[in-house]
Amino acid sequence: MAITPQKQDYSQWYLDVAKEADLFEYAPVTGCITFLPKSVTLWQKIRETMQKKLDLLGVQNMMLPLLIPMSYFEKEKDHIEWFAPELAVVTHGWGKQLDEPYAIRPTSELLFCQFFKNRLTSYRDLPLLYNQWANIIRWEKRTRPFLRTTEFHWQEGHTLHESHDEANAFALSILHDVYIATIRDLMAIDGIVGRKSESEKFAGADTTYTFEPMMGNGWALQICTSHLLGQGFMRGFDVTFQNREGWLENPYYTSWGLSTRSIGGIISSHGDDRWIIIPPRMSEYGAVILPIYGKENTDRVNAYVREIASIVTGSQTEIPVRGEYFRAYVGDETKTLIDFRNIRLGEKIAEWEISGYPQRIECGERDIEQRTCVVASRITGEKKIVPLDELQSTLALMAEAGQKALLEKSRVRLRENTVPCKSLEDIGEAVNDGKFALYEWDKNPAFEQEIKDRFKATTRCIPFEGQFTDMLLTPEKSDTVMVVVARNF
Amino acid sequence: MAITPQKQDYSQWYLDVAKEADLFEYAPVTGCITFLPKSVTLWQKIRETMQKKLDLLGVQNMMLPLLIPMSYFEKEKDHIEWFAPELAVVTHGWGKQLDEPYAIRPTSELLFCQFFKNRLTSYRDLPLLYNQWANIIRWEKRTRPFLRTTEFHWQEGHTLHESHDEANAFALSILHDVYIATIRDLMAIDGIVGRKSESEKFAGADTTYTFEPMMGNGWALQICTSHLLGQGFMRGFDVTFQNREGWLENPYYTSWGLSTRSIGGIISSHGDDRWIIIPPRMSEYGAVILPIYGKENTDRVNAYVREIASIVTGSQTEIPVRGEYFRAYVGDETKTLIDFRNIRLGEKIAEWEISGYPQRIECGERDIEQRTCVVASRITGEKKIVPLDELQSTLALMAEAGQKALLEKSRVRLRENTVPCKSLEDIGEAVNDGKFALYEWDKNPAFEQEIKDRFKATTRCIPFEGQFTDMLLTPEKSDTVMVVVARNF
Repeated sequence: MAITPQKQDYSQWYLDVAKEADLFEYAPVTGCITFLPKSVTLWQKIRETMQKKLDLLGVQNMMLPLLIPMSYFEKEKDHIEWFAPELAVVTHGWGKQLDEPYAIRPTSELLFCQFFKNRLTSYRDLPLLYNQWANIIRWEKRTRPFLRTTEFHWQEGHTLHESHDEANAFALSILHDVYIATIRDLMAIDGIVGRKSESEKFAGADTTYTFEPMMGNGWALQICTSHLLGQGFMRGFDVTFQNREGWLENPYYTSWGLSTRSIGGIISSHGDDRWIIIPPRMSEYGAVILPIYGKENTDRVNAYVREIASIVTGSQTEIPVRGEYFRAYVGDETKTLIDFRNIRLGEKIAEWEISGYPQRIECGERDIEQRTCVVASRITGEKKIVPLDELQSTLALMAEAGQKALLEKSRVRLRENTVPCKSLEDIGEAVNDGKFALYEWDKNPAFEQEIKDRFKATTRCIPFEGQFTDMLLTPEKSDTVMVVVARNF
Repeated sequence: MAITPQKQDYSQWYLDVAKEADLFEYAPVTGCITFLPKSVTLWQKIRETMQKKLDLLGVQNMMLPLLIPMSYFEKEKDHIEWFAPELAVVTHGWGKQLDEPYAIRPTSELLFCQFFKNRLTSYRDLPLLYNQWANIIRWEKRTRPFLRTTEFHWQEGHTLHESHDEANAFALSILHDVYIATIRDLMAIDGIVGRKSESEKFAGADTTYTFEPMMGNGWALQICTSHLLGQGFMRGFDVTFQNREGWLENPYYTSWGLSTRSIGGIISSHGDDRWIIIPPRMSEYGAVILPIYGKENTDRVNAYVREIASIVTGSQTEIPVRGEYFRAYVGDETKTLIDFRNIRLGEKIAEWEISGYPQRIECGERDIEQRTCVVASRITGEKKIVPLDELQSTLALMAEAGQKALLEKSRVRLRENTVPCKSLEDIGEAVNDGKFALYEWDKNPAFEQEIKDRFKATTRCIPFEGQFTDMLLTPEKSDTVMVVVARNF
């Protein structure tokens, strides 16, 4: 399949490259995809990394029902307005019409609120810190694999706190210590951190915090949000606790989510005209091993690559993963895959480069004598002959260099394509060029409507201090803020 | 809350004890429960253990859609008959009626078949080995927490093979190397392994393999099944491959699942009139630490229990997990929880015993001088004073002894309550006494209807050889089989 060049049609490039890398298939359900093993592995790595961080914050996992009684949606006005058009509604069960229809969860605030009601008596019960890994359905009109699908997967955290300040601090801790740490260190993606404008914040939230990376085309991706919901939902569901002064009070609520949309961020941030790149820390395989066959050396070469696979993983066991030619070695720390197909080396290399795995090992007859192999990085382009006793350390160093290079590329892209703007015309020029525009905004919502109508752009966030310090100068007027304007990926 | 004695009403005991141990809450959705953190942790341990074993078999994870077009159910006749009454049907999306309704998956054979169709050309593409961790909805009339809930969680494996024998061997490998290994070694539950009768096997399967443990009341729990589906589904969906002889052929299909029902098995198998017991290998906490306060020593005791928590986990960081008094230490290998409430020690102990965590540490003023603490096992009843430098090894040994004791209890129960029967009257007596009946069966389905009508019992499995060798004698007639009859938990 030919991959459409990015310059020609970025959206088509995105679809082509994700399909070619075997990340998804379209499913026979409107707007849904089948997540193939490679994208499931990416999600699993994100999940494991975040789970460790959540454990350290004392967050506990729950599993709430998939279905929500429709009547619950009446309890929070903003919430129903936001979600009503997107709901998938179950009307039949037991082969007959149900007395009350259920919605498939578009998010779980409503069920968590109901749950909290029974768990809370006194300030001594607080904080309550919960999370769940779940699937979500939002019936979207326009869908794009990973970025916007009718069904997606995410984690959603829901916590209650005694005070506004504690809740706010926790929402920020999730943003920084869990989300940004994972996005930067694991996914190798940089972005701008801040809060959403009034019109862009979550339905029912006091404040929505966000981290907005720049994708390959200079558009912004909302990769995670952390909401200080405050007391609104709590009032709707009449959730109260006895505070330290003995009065009944509504607790302060936070919710926060990061979804499989992030896989789309990885594709776009690290991909180029030819292929995607999986960040080394997210790669299922520490290396893919490609034996080079001559005329009659097949058995010797095969024995040698098996030895290499054992060195890389520490495992002696060969596992059939798919069909006749692909075999894996699974170690405690890393896996490797051997491609035993007897096809031209160039063809093999080309295929594995498209697949996006960051490192490969090639070896043939000549290497056996020398006890060496060739190790190549898809990211840095480095390729060298390595003695077997240096193989493990070389792979580890190469992986870290690759991981660093990807993050640096993302950082530089963001840095070089973020520009201060003084007028609407400046903003239009910036977003048309695939850039983030920084603008001093008087907080008038009419501005947001205008940039949407004229440039198909939105306000992405009001950045926290300390970023782009040379550009993000203190606003000149006291009633204005700096805002990032960009197109939505 | 008072826990109903097992002898009085086992079903009520089960509900009481699961509720009291904080494993679930009833959800505001018919037949659904909210899985509280403790049961989610149990499921997570099962998932991690099985995932490692699946990795070693080369099985890859997928995520297929939650929704299945209703028209797909027409393609496999047995399948639709089995599942039609249990389907939850989505009829509305985008705020309007959908052109085609969708069912929420009651299992995913239909979508996997459609998926396989596009993946398969030649025998060289086989085997295809996939699994997914997913939520399922089956609209059941009678539900019981964990055992039978409208929504439940499971893994479902779906594999294709070149030959009947290879598929059969794989279905058996899943049964033995993944399921039974996990159920015995992690959940500490023993059972009988075999295959289901014609009428009890899965809709559309050639053979269904099963492992049936005996619950605390002598009833059987179908905890996992592994199906050799053969070529039936493949024909319905027209999935073919070119075989080694060059002919088009349908591949051989296996599917297999283990669900959150297993949590019900843990409750029943290890619980008694007073409480549940969590097997040590499944426990979130290596130990729960209970400080004993005197009159004015609170700070000293608190400092000492913090030191103990650090020794147990290797972590110095205290994490608030819930409310004011509960703090966790999270190490790489294990976690521990400190209950800082200043209440009577007896009350504290009683509460933690009900919670089911297998080990606790108590320590007070006196221990500080001696540099000791008291370690107690909920399983073996062992309780002893341990110097701090022996604490880690003592906990590890105690955990293994407890794990072993639980499995042995399960093994002995099964052994002592499985009886050979010569007549229907014998069977009736056995199942009324809470026993498994072994019976030489002529495979006439009328027998299955009769034991259902008269004793509310079903055939559980036709056991493989090598179990109960003194009882499971070779059937006397050539056209009969030995069968296990029991009540369904």
